[in-house]
This record gives sequence, structure tokens and C-alpha cells, in this order.
Amino acid sequence: MARPTPLSGFPEWLPQGRTVEQHILDALRRTFELHGFAGIETRAVEPLDQLLRKGETSKEVYVLRRLQEEAPGDSSSGSESDDRQLGLHFDLTVPFARYVLENAGHLAFPFKRYQIQKVWRGERPQDGRFREFVQADIDVVGAGELPYHYEVELPLVIAEALGSLAAIGVPPVRILVNNRKVAEGFYRGLGLEDVEGVLRSIDKLDKVGPKGVAALLVAEAGATGEQAAACLELAGISGSDASVVDRVREVAARHCVTSELLETGLVELGALVTAAAERAPGVVVADLKIARGLDYYTGSVYETVLVGHEQLGSICSGGRYDTLASDGDKTYPGVGLSIGVSRLVSRLLGAELVTVSRSVPSAVVVAVTSEETRGESDRIGTALRARGIPVEVAPSAAKFGKQIKYADRRGVPFVWFPGSAAGTAEDGTPVPAKSDQVKDIRSGEQVEADPATWQPPAADLWPRVQAG
Amino acid sequence: MARPTPLSGFPEWLPQGRTVEQHILDALRRTFELHGFAGIETRAVEPLDQLLRKGETSKEVYVLRRLQEEAPGDSSSGSESDDRQLGLHFDLTVPFARYVLENAGHLAFPFKRYQIQKVWRGERPQDGRFREFVQADIDVVGAGELPYHYEVELPLVIAEALGSLAAIGVPPVRILVNNRKVAEGFYRGLGLEDVEGVLRSIDKLDKVGPKGVAALLVAEAGATGEQAAACLELAGISGSDASVVDRVREVAARHCVTSELLETGLVELGALVTAAAERAPGVVVADLKIARGLDYYTGSVYETVLVGHEQLGSICSGGRYDTLASDGDKTYPGVGLSIGVSRLVSRLLGAELVTVSRSVPSAVVVAVTSEETRGESDRIGTALRARGIPVEVAPSAAKFGKQIKYADRRGVPFVWFPGSAAGTAEDGTPVPAKSDQVKDIRSGEQVEADPATWQPPAADLWPRVQAG
Repeated sequence: MARPTPLSGFPEWLPQGRTVEQHILDALRRTFELHGFAGIETRAVEPLDQLLRKGETSKEVYVLRRLQEEAPGDSSSGSESDDRQLGLHFDLTVPFARYVLENAGHLAFPFKRYQIQKVWRGERPQDGRFREFVQADIDVVGAGELPYHYEVELPLVIAEALGSLAAIGVPPVRILVNNRKVAEGFYRGLGLEDVEGVLRSIDKLDKVGPKGVAALLVAEAGATGEQAAACLELAGISGSDASVVDRVREVAARHCVTSELLETGLVELGALVTAAAERAPGVVVADLKIARGLDYYTGSVYETVLVGHEQLGSICSGGRYDTLASDGDKTYPGVGLSIGVSRLVSRLLGAELVTVSRSVPSAVVVAVTSEETRGESDRIGTALRARGIPVEVAPSAAKFGKQIKYADRRGVPFVWFPGSAAGTAEDGTPVPAKSDQVKDIRSGEQVEADPATWQPPAADLWPRVQAG
Repeated sequence: MARPTPLSGFPEWLPQGRTVEQHILDALRRTFELHGFAGIETRAVEPLDQLLRKGETSKEVYVLRRLQEEAPGDSSSGSESDDRQLGLHFDLTVPFARYVLENAGHLAFPFKRYQIQKVWRGERPQDGRFREFVQADIDVVGAGELPYHYEVELPLVIAEALGSLAAIGVPPVRILVNNRKVAEGFYRGLGLEDVEGVLRSIDKLDKVGPKGVAALLVAEAGATGEQAAACLELAGISGSDASVVDRVREVAARHCVTSELLETGLVELGALVTAAAERAPGVVVADLKIARGLDYYTGSVYETVLVGHEQLGSICSGGRYDTLASDGDKTYPGVGLSIGVSRLVSRLLGAELVTVSRSVPSAVVVAVTSEETRGESDRIGTALRARGIPVEVAPSAAKFGKQIKYADRRGVPFVWFPGSAAGTAEDGTPVPAKSDQVKDIRSGEQVEADPATWQPPAADLWPRVQAG
């Protein structure tokens, strides 16, 4: 087998990189669980018709075919009745909606869940855009109804989760929020009926600039120049306190826009910004240009940028949808956000924002004096592990210098040298007993130690993930 | 959307089931890390030619096709140069071998890694046999050489990992070990050259019985009746101490078998059984009928049964392979075992061997007195979470009875009632301040509590996973 090369769009990390990713996943999970979100996992596949239900062809679904079952060219029909055509999920929202419907009778609503899994999209790979990547989602879903306060709670949980990563060098985040009711109420109040079209145009503001968007609004959303200018005026408003609401009202009044929907949206947006100012000061910013193209959002919408890395795009997006799922009988509204873990980790590693103190979990390598006495070294390892200290035993009874090098190459801070019982040398002279010793190979300091009591410094117990 | 139905072979768990699975994954990972295994994850896909390299068509590979890219009937050619045909991995060994070759320059050998991921096989689903399932693998791989002692170490790490699950009601396991050198040396010493064929026949012992295997050996492996009887005699030997080695020597002597390979294998098997008797008494059993059909094993082979659930099949298998990977220049020998996590979890849940104390992480539901004072309840939640207590705030300011029911339905043990500041009633009479109170809804006991200091009993802090 020749040396294989990486597949573009399918990122993999070396053990150190995986340690960073695992640390982040553990931290996210802990915050989610502290807030009462239950973890679930769904299968990686969904029936293809479900994946394409919302016309999501842009997600470039990967379709599965069983190599044994079907001849090439006949991939649309299976020989077994349970062989509906399957595709890999491209997000965790579609599978979650299906899971909710399938298990509704066994779930308690409102149901708060987190879900951390890989998803697949056959898009062209770019910086921060992969074909296989990890998402970490939280959603709350109600049966029939879902109170607004969850639209305030969820971005604050995300702020706390991502904020907990500051300790390892992750830059601060800014969560940009808007409310679909504000946008829709304002546009309709202006006399623009193609709300979808306006949102799609506004969504391009960062790409084509205000002039470009104005042209799009006129050409594609049927706006007059004056209406386009009003839309851009709204999109230009942002701020992190309730004054942002007053500014929207002022713009609306100037353009003679009155709308109940707008007013409802403004009350909601104001509540979110006010709560956020108390509970996550400086993190949440109302930004009226945030559109989120997806048509199923009906209330709050969220995007999240890594401060100083805005060009990476959003690392956490989501919103409120009145119909996450429906079985015809009952409708399940929800609100959720999805963290792009791979995008985040790839930037942290690529820009060396985060480092790891060693490439293995082991805090200690127990040296082996001779293969005959490997059992002694194993027993020392067992004694240390029993007290929660990660330990490996050296691979061979090489010279101690080589065994120290083994530890050093992996960044393991301590090497343990087994002692020996009292005995007699070949010439008959008595040899006294020798105690175990442990060496900090960074400082060279070596001390006597007992595997039943010795403790490494807390900072050395596990690999340290830290700012680069 | 009509109520969806499960896909056969793609198991999913309710939140309680996922809590069991997550507990098991955490416990396995902790043991692996205590032994110095580094965690890695590989992408879910491999080039199809690599997946089929060992002729593994029996694994029923799932092949991927991008819906957008290719017309049906043209699935064999991609339009981009990086579009080699891809399939989902069917185990974690093939991807690990590829990862080792790809990253050899960045890894330190011997390299000990664990890997916990889903794998896919398009086989017909049965009890304990899925199309999508989770495996937890440990392997050690060397560059050029790998000492035998790792063949002793790895099953003992597995014994410790699975043994750590006894606390939650997982039955004890029995790890059955054999050594390919013993089998091969014995067969060749008997004059049987089709070692593969003999192993394949012996592998069917549980299915077709000794008479059936004897017939197979004669018909398919070219054995005489006497040779077949000798093979069955060897296969009948088992035991958990070194006497098993003497019994093999005795049978070999009786059939005039002498073989260096056999002798090497017996020394190895003896060392494994002796070490296991000390470090995991009663868990490891030498069983000379264990064949493991795969041709790449060259030394120790392992299978693991759940005691009392032997008919479930092996829940952890593996062995030593002299050529895990090779880049033509260098060969990488390895030894590893793979735990079938989904098979184990499915039995634990199906047979109700394990239960969970609640369906959500929350130890406390903070009641909401009125929507106007939800902020008070939020602040109580924040104070409790800051001390590591999982908390959720009630979904609505319903009557307290309904809020208690919300907690009760999820098995949350505590409900917290916010107090209130001193004030004045509408008729002018002073209302004294009221302290926060917390109620254990199981006993009904309700006490005053301060969110800055109150602590639930340790056993109630997180959901308890326990024997059913």
C-alpha cells in the first residue's frame, strides 16, 4: 500500500488535535447538561425523500448504495422492502424532527436535547467548509406550543458554552440576533409582499454591499428605490441594548410603517437583548441585517462569529421555527442553535490558537528494568491507575536513557524507576533494598516515591489544553 | 409528515438509553486513557478500493454517491479528480491502518490509540447485529516490531474496562484467548497444510458440533479421520491456568506432533494465562477452539462473551496481526480488540439489566412564580449551575402542582421555590420576606435553602445508571 493522502473536505486530526476537539466537546456537553438538555444520538442515515423534503438540494446529499445488493445503474430500487433509498444526514435538525415524531409518545414536552454528531455534505470544500464535519446542536421543542422565553434562553446557553472555552484560548464570540417578525412586519408594512425575496437579497449584504443589495431588491424583490433604501436603513441598525428597538421604531415611523407583527417582534427582540445584557454582557448583539435564508424560521434568528475571525463565517447559527415537525395532528414548534465544531477546531489548530501539553494521556511512564521484572512495573502502573493517574509501562527494557526519551517524545512529564528488594551480589556481598524513584524529566529532579501515595501536580495529571 | 417508523438495523435509543450508552462510553474511555491510549477519530469514509482490499465483500460495504454530481447509472465515475469512489468504513481497523501510514511521520511508535465511532455494514439485521453500530477499539501498533507483552496487556485493559461496568449491572465477561501459532503449528505438525481451511471448519464448532466439523475437515480441509479427531481434541482444551499448556503438549505428543511454531505459541499462551490469572482472576480463559476466521491474525486471538448471554455472540474480539499496515518500505505490526458497544447496549436495555434514575440531566427544576419574575428563577438556576448542579427552570408559571408534575414526569428529584422580598399587600398590611425553599418530591420533604450553598446528595447530582 503506497502512502495514502488525505481526502479533501474530510478533516482528521493528529492525537493532539483530537485532544483539543475532545476537550471542546466535553466542555459543550457539560454546559448543555448543566442546563438540563438530554443527550441523544440519531442514526447517520435518513430516507432520501425526507432529506429532500424541504427542497434542500443545495446541501448536496450523499446517497448510499449497498455494494452487494444492487447492480450499478439500478441504484433506485432495493430488493428488500426495508430498502428505502437512504442518504447521510446533512444536519441534525431533520433527524431530530423525525426522532421527535417517531418517539413523541415516549418524550416529555417541552423536550430539551443536545446532539453532537458528524454530518455530511457533498459541497466543494473550502476553508472552514467540509464534506464531513461535527455539529453540536441544542434545541427545545414543544408539543403544540413553545413559550418565547426559550428564544432568550438558548443563545445564552450557547454564550455560556462557548464562553467556557476562553480558558483554553478560544477567542470571544459575538452572537448576532434578529427577529424574523421584525423583518417581515417591516417589509410588509412598507408594502413589500415578497418577504422571502427581500430576505435573500439582504442576506447578500456582506458579499455585494448596500448598492448591490439595493439593485437586487429592485430587480428581484419588486421594490421601489425608496423601499429598497428603507430596507437597507433597517439592515443598518445594530446594538447590544434595548435602544436598538427604539431606533427601529424611529425608522418605521419615518417610513409610515405600522405593523402588529413588527411590534410583536420588537417586544421579543427587546426582551432578548435586555436579558442578554444582564446574563452575558457584551456577547449578544441585535443586528437587523441577519436574515438566515431558510424559510422555516419564524421568530428569533442567530449567527455567531469568532471575534477577530469574522471572515471564517458563522460558527453557530439557528433560530425559532413554528413547525419543526408535524404529524398532521400535532405541530411541534422549536428553537435551536448548531455549533460548527469542526470549523471552530480547524481554525483553532490551523491558527495555533490552542496547544496541548502532550500527545498521550499518560502522566507517567514506568520504566522496565528487565523483561523478567516487567511484572513489577505493571504492578506499579496498576497501583497508580487505581488512584486515577494515567500511566503506561515502557515498551522495552532498554537503557533508561532510551526509556526517558520515549516519555520525552510524547511530552510525558514523569518517568518512574522501580526499586528492588534487598539481595546478594554474585560475589556474595549484600545489596541493600532500593526504593522506587520518580523523575520529573522537565526539571531533572528525581525523588523517592511510593506508588500507593505519590501524586503528580494537578496541572500535570491530564494533558493540558491551553492558549497557544 | 406521517408518523415515521424505525429503520431495521439502525438502532436509536430514547434519552434514558442514550444515558446508559454514554455512561459506558465514558467508562471505556476513562480506562483506555488511564492506560495511556490516545484518542483519535478517523473520517467515516474510505476509498472503496481500500475497503475491498482484503476481499472483505462479506462486510457489505455501503457506497456513497453525491446526489448532485452524478447521474444514476454513472455512479462509478466522478467528475472531479478527488472523487475516488468512497464507501462507509465497516470497522475501525482498516481506517486506523490507513491513518497510521498517512501520519507515520507525526506519530511516536509504539502508538497506542483508542477509537470510538460508528461503523456501517449492509448485512441483514438480526438480534445483536446491526447495519449501523458503535465500536470501541484499542490497538497498539509498532514500526517494524511489536513486543509480545502487548498481547498480554491489551485483553487485560479490556477486562478492566468492561469490569468497571459491573457497578451499573453489566454481567461479568469471559475473554476467550487462543494463539494462532499454536493452532497453525499443531495442524502443520499433523501434516495438514490447509491451515485456513482447518480454522474455517473449527470456527463452526458451536454451530454444527464435533461430528459436523469432523466431516468438514475431511471434506474441505483434506484431513484424514485421525487428523480430524486430533484437531477436535485440541479444540476441546480450555482452562484458565498454565496447566492448559501442558494438556496441549500432551495431546501433541500423543499425535507425534513436534513444531517450533507450536512451542513458541504455547510459551506465549502460557505467559498470557499466567499474567491474567494474577491481574484479572477468572476473566481470561484459554480456549483452543477459538479460531477467528480472519487470515491476518498471526498470534493471539480473542473473543469475549457476556456471562449468561453467550448466545449473543462475542462482544469484543481481536488479535495480533504482523502486518496491520505496510507502505512497502516499513511494516507495522499491531494487536487490538474491538468492543461491540451497540450490541452490548442493546442487550442491556432490551433485557432491562440496567436502568437510569431520570430522563434528563437536571437535578433541580426551579419553579417560576409568575412570568414577570422568571428572571428571579433564572438567577437561582445560574447560582446553582455555577456550583456544578444541573438545573432547569420551569417552562411556564403554571400552578406549582403542575410544575412539580413537570419535574416528576422526568424523574427530577428536587423542585426549588423562589422566595420573595418583604412587601405590602393591596390592603396595606405588610407581607414578610419569604425564603427560597427546596422540595424533595420523592419524600415530600421541603426545607429552606440558599442557592449559594445548598447541595443535593451526591447520588442525586447526576442521573444514576444502575442495575435494573
